[in-house]
Amino acid sequence: MVKIPVAILGATGAVGQRLALILAEHPWFEPVYLGASERSEGRPYGDAARWILPDELPARLAGLRVGSVYPEGAREAGLAGGAFPRLAFSALDAAAAAPAEEAWAQAGVLVVSNASVNRMRTDVPLVIPEINPGHLSLLAQQSYPRGGGIVTNPNCSTIGLAMALKPLHDSFGIEACSVTTLQAASGAGYPGVPSLDILDNAIPFIGGEEAKLESEPAKILGSYQGDDKGGSIREAGLSISAACHRVAVRDGHLEAVALRCARVVSRDEILAAWAAFDGGLGALGLPWAPLRPLVYIEAEDRPQPRLDRERERGMAVSLGRLRPCPVLGWKFELLSHNTLRGAAGGTVLLAELCAARGIVA
Amino acid sequence: MVKIPVAILGATGAVGQRLALILAEHPWFEPVYLGASERSEGRPYGDAARWILPDELPARLAGLRVGSVYPEGAREAGLAGGAFPRLAFSALDAAAAAPAEEAWAQAGVLVVSNASVNRMRTDVPLVIPEINPGHLSLLAQQSYPRGGGIVTNPNCSTIGLAMALKPLHDSFGIEACSVTTLQAASGAGYPGVPSLDILDNAIPFIGGEEAKLESEPAKILGSYQGDDKGGSIREAGLSISAACHRVAVRDGHLEAVALRCARVVSRDEILAAWAAFDGGLGALGLPWAPLRPLVYIEAEDRPQPRLDRERERGMAVSLGRLRPCPVLGWKFELLSHNTLRGAAGGTVLLAELCAARGIVA
Amino acid sequence: MVKIPVAILGATGAVGQRLALILAEHPWFEPVYLGASERSEGRPYGDAARWILPDELPARLAGLRVGSVYPEGAREAGLAGGAFPRLAFSALDAAAAAPAEEAWAQAGVLVVSNASVNRMRTDVPLVIPEINPGHLSLLAQQSYPRGGGIVTNPNCSTIGLAMALKPLHDSFGIEACSVTTLQAASGAGYPGVPSLDILDNAIPFIGGEEAKLESEPAKILGSYQGDDKGGSIREAGLSISAACHRVAVRDGHLEAVALRCARVVSRDEILAAWAAFDGGLGALGLPWAPLRPLVYIEAEDRPQPRLDRERERGMAVSLGRLRPCPVLGWKFELLSHNTLRGAAGGTVLLAELCAARGIVA
Amino acid sequence: MVKIPVAILGATGAVGQRLALILAEHPWFEPVYLGASERSEGRPYGDAARWILPDELPARLAGLRVGSVYPEGAREAGLAGGAFPRLAFSALDAAAAAPAEEAWAQAGVLVVSNASVNRMRTDVPLVIPEINPGHLSLLAQQSYPRGGGIVTNPNCSTIGLAMALKPLHDSFGIEACSVTTLQAASGAGYPGVPSLDILDNAIPFIGGEEAKLESEPAKILGSYQGDDKGGSIREAGLSISAACHRVAVRDGHLEAVALRCARVVSRDEILAAWAAFDGGLGALGLPWAPLRPLVYIEAEDRPQPRLDRERERGMAVSLGRLRPCPVLGWKFELLSHNTLRGAAGGTVLLAELCAARGIVA
Repeated sequence: MVKIPVAILGATGAVGQRLALILAEHPWFEPVYLGASERSEGRPYGDAARWILPDELPARLAGLRVGSVYPEGAREAGLAGGAFPRLAFSALDAAAAAPAEEAWAQAGVLVVSNASVNRMRTDVPLVIPEINPGHLSLLAQQSYPRGGGIVTNPNCSTIGLAMALKPLHDSFGIEACSVTTLQAASGAGYPGVPSLDILDNAIPFIGGEEAKLESEPAKILGSYQGDDKGGSIREAGLSISAACHRVAVRDGHLEAVALRCARVVSRDEILAAWAAFDGGLGALGLPWAPLRPLVYIEAEDRPQPRLDRERERGMAVSLGRLRPCPVLGWKFELLSHNTLRGAAGGTVLLAELCAARGIVA
Repeated sequence: MVKIPVAILGATGAVGQRLALILAEHPWFEPVYLGASERSEGRPYGDAARWILPDELPARLAGLRVGSVYPEGAREAGLAGGAFPRLAFSALDAAAAAPAEEAWAQAGVLVVSNASVNRMRTDVPLVIPEINPGHLSLLAQQSYPRGGGIVTNPNCSTIGLAMALKPLHDSFGIEACSVTTLQAASGAGYPGVPSLDILDNAIPFIGGEEAKLESEPAKILGSYQGDDKGGSIREAGLSISAACHRVAVRDGHLEAVALRCARVVSRDEILAAWAAFDGGLGALGLPWAPLRPLVYIEAEDRPQPRLDRERERGMAVSLGRLRPCPVLGWKFELLSHNTLRGAAGGTVLLAELCAARGIVA
Repeated sequence: MVKIPVAILGATGAVGQRLALILAEHPWFEPVYLGASERSEGRPYGDAARWILPDELPARLAGLRVGSVYPEGAREAGLAGGAFPRLAFSALDAAAAAPAEEAWAQAGVLVVSNASVNRMRTDVPLVIPEINPGHLSLLAQQSYPRGGGIVTNPNCSTIGLAMALKPLHDSFGIEACSVTTLQAASGAGYPGVPSLDILDNAIPFIGGEEAKLESEPAKILGSYQGDDKGGSIREAGLSISAACHRVAVRDGHLEAVALRCARVVSRDEILAAWAAFDGGLGALGLPWAPLRPLVYIEAEDRPQPRLDRERERGMAVSLGRLRPCPVLGWKFELLSHNTLRGAAGGTVLLAELCAARGIVA
Repeated sequence: MVKIPVAILGATGAVGQRLALILAEHPWFEPVYLGASERSEGRPYGDAARWILPDELPARLAGLRVGSVYPEGAREAGLAGGAFPRLAFSALDAAAAAPAEEAWAQAGVLVVSNASVNRMRTDVPLVIPEINPGHLSLLAQQSYPRGGGIVTNPNCSTIGLAMALKPLHDSFGIEACSVTTLQAASGAGYPGVPSLDILDNAIPFIGGEEAKLESEPAKILGSYQGDDKGGSIREAGLSISAACHRVAVRDGHLEAVALRCARVVSRDEILAAWAAFDGGLGALGLPWAPLRPLVYIEAEDRPQPRLDRERERGMAVSLGRLRPCPVLGWKFELLSHNTLRGAAGGTVLLAELCAARGIVA
């Protein structure tokens, strides 16, 4: 099988490094171009990236010369025609992502983005493959040249929540949900959170995070209305309230969730709904799909970031402590790895879904 | 002024050390007896306490020989008659507190306790001096010998919450409250939380904590019904849901709170209620009363444990981030120092209130 | 191949858990008996161990009933005759290890111990397989029944140092060595270091550690004098000074080393000696032998615990920052994983060496 | 007494904030001008400084408009003539300090600097008031206009070491000294060390630090040769080797020190030399002079950053664990607060010395 040539945009950052690690070994994708900010341009990736992961920087990428975050960079790099990226992974910050993602899509490349800037655009799919793969039909609404398009991965704190809510919303209807997060430092990228801000401390604020967490799930849990020629997302009708905190944890977002369902449900019904949820990806053979997207842990003090974040290569969401909530009905805790399931792994899985569906080939 | 001789029970623990520091310099109280577990009995306090505070162990207490946690210990210690403790501060764990506090009360000593075991007893006042000093009238229900009695200080995570809720409950009526905590390691005492449990980690469970946080505020915010000869507490009718977490912070419990009021209220009304709250202790001249029990901080990322826990010698509760909650109405963040306001400082202030009222003299 | 039945003593502790993980999957050894303290006796291992590792407790061991740390426990457990352990891994603390290891050796079982108590006994080999495998000849000095014996693994902070020094001592002769350690919390076991001792802190003291680090390398680097019937170790003649610190790191001991050689050496000579060191185990096919026991990293700020401790499944020692020392000649930094190379992995590798040599079969 | 008007350069940084706190309450100095980088220029100090200290930003400085780091800034600020700074505290980084300090000195202002750039200049005093106040005579070598000059405070890791060595060098002669540091995050300023670099980690490298620590003590412990008209420093003849590490501690540099003296000395002699050292500042009444510059702690596990850094308002150096070193003779541990004694407090004390001597008035 010939691999699909791909670009990684924002390749030197915390999420970009995870992407580089995953894609250097990926059976379907071949990273042929690495884009980053001006500071890195022109330098070999091995020099430009201040590497922060225990796994070593992939040898096959170390010598690649970093270019700009625009498709011109790839053209100037003189890649052989066939090797020009057909898919671009974007781990750019919002400001850089806006023009760059547009440029790649206009250049006929499918952008799979972890950036927030395009997520809520009405013609852009915001997709978790196990939850709303059908939303990819929204791509028909986009008017980019052949092959071009933008699909997005949710915010790192949204993914775990949306996955935990999906089977419950389908079975019981969720009217309201309250979520308080304890988020890891890697969620802010690198250098990100200064150590003087977080040693012996916790911070009850992450810029823009609560708004994302309160708005994205309604789109993800919404339904696609239309046919292959046109359509839109009807958002789910649930209210979400979020309170976001940064804590002294390297990786893994922990979330305390409470919810009110449209009807009375029992603990067993909830556990059964989670247990029955398999994500529906089994037949596609996506390399980064977890065997079990949701794992409920019975121990009274789980999930915990350090113990549970690596489950299924960081692609499973861990659940625990389901118990009655005197205010909303039920409450529980969830954990997902913010730079794997919540970012790099999530975008790779989404790209795999696009490839399996023939959206990129 | 002759100081009141006092005992400190559980004097070697994390809260006991804070009590020793405060009481060694206190203008009204004189620590004359230190009780601790068998491991410490018979040793000078300076040797028995594995000191964990930056302030040095008080020189005047270093040579005191530690005795048992029972009044017999004080008798055997051969204290001069007048010096026998008339007040006992209890920083014992629940198992030790049950028999020991009963014994001191039976011995005619007023116990001011930070232990949980007697808090919900119908004849025991559970008091935050700024909120429900009138509950001390419950002491009339107790049948201990003259001078004896038990009054209690709330759980460390309850105090901040109850103080933040009090003026709002009085003004608007609170129907429901959801609270998610990020609690400091010192709340578990010493040795307490193992470092391997908390470095690069957060734990979504603290044994017994959620039940305390869901039940104590209703008693504290309740009203005393009766007269000086007899009465009881009618609990406030609010529902509370708590989710408790341990984080890698030394001191200071951070709490994310959301609440539903009985009527529509504006942000300004809430801020005004907090600003107007002065605790009503001004006239009593209690040495450990904070000037402002509640401090609202306007910065978007406050309160934070490291920056705000020491406010007013750790006796003020810091508030911030008041904003609309799509589910319950309003949400905010609060912080209080768990071993000062939430434990040692709180019991000292309560003892001062008892002294000012002539309950102990 | 029939696996060798083995016991794990101290199976519930921090090192015991690592042993359980490694041995549950080991191609040569089969854990048939788990011993631990009285608190755990009689309970299934899955209940008795408070599991602290991200990898899950091995399912095949979860149901094993924990017994005492003595061979009687294994006999009472009614293991089929052939399954009685022929090798016992000891991860006991010193007090428990003394009688228990003696009992197993007297019962005809080879004890491979991570405990300190027998390390300096003149008839007990203290072995790092890549350095002094010949010291196993000391077993002939022991008078245990057939099959019985005691071999020991060095202290967790000694192993990395001894491995770094070995090729230099062989090539240049080391006269003096000064080492200052920054040691991880897991070195103290579980619960071990209280979080209140280490959050926002460092501790310049670890009980007994400096004496071990100053004495063990001379034995390990010493030479076996004698033949198969009898002999002894002539210790190497180097002076070592150690200063040991505990820091807020989960795993991985970092050590700053300076040394004075018997002759003038150049930087290139030292690097060449390290590069040439392969440990000599290649031909034996030991499953847990690292491909490269020593890895020199050129980056100016390495090795670091988080980035380098997992190298070669935690069995390699990382080196870096070789530079002139104005006082002793040369200085460098080293890092080794304290519960893998420095404890569980080290004892497993030593047991493999014993099996390969036919000492246990 | 009329206070001396002073400027704080680099006022928004980690050390600058400490200076602001100290000087806002200082009995001799009056901060009238705050200089910082372009990003802050023109903004009120209360807005420009991202405040990182628990003590609140001084109200009297909050409204001061931040200017440039050059004296022109102060002139443009339209300060009344008499209020123009006569002393400038410099907490600038090296690149900014070089031209700025020169400009202030040329403007007739005495610069008391914490920056490294001028420390080793042969005509610039590098002074710890308790150790080498006589080096201020070097100012006569400088050719700045009347009132102008530059004096410097040592590197934060140098100060504690030089203070510990001083009495030993005077009494016994130190030939060689080996020091390994565990340095706090605040030493790198703010934002400084990224949290992803230090959570669950330690870093064996701090850029430029080892060179400073190996060179500065020889100048500080050196002797002034000359008279009031001219002279120079003859450096002390000791060899120092340093290995510097960053650890997950907020404040307080811990250093493991070993030393070889010119003659055999006993433990009691060393302790006596430290005990006898009072710094000689008593008669001057300097507000920030510690009562006891050196404090030896007998406990086996001290000094520790969290427990000992605040001793004497962070101005004392704590010592402990004096024990024989098999390689060099004696070894011990020391701790000093890196942003108080090691930076802001040290420069304030040095400025006080200059004022007491009439160098600035």
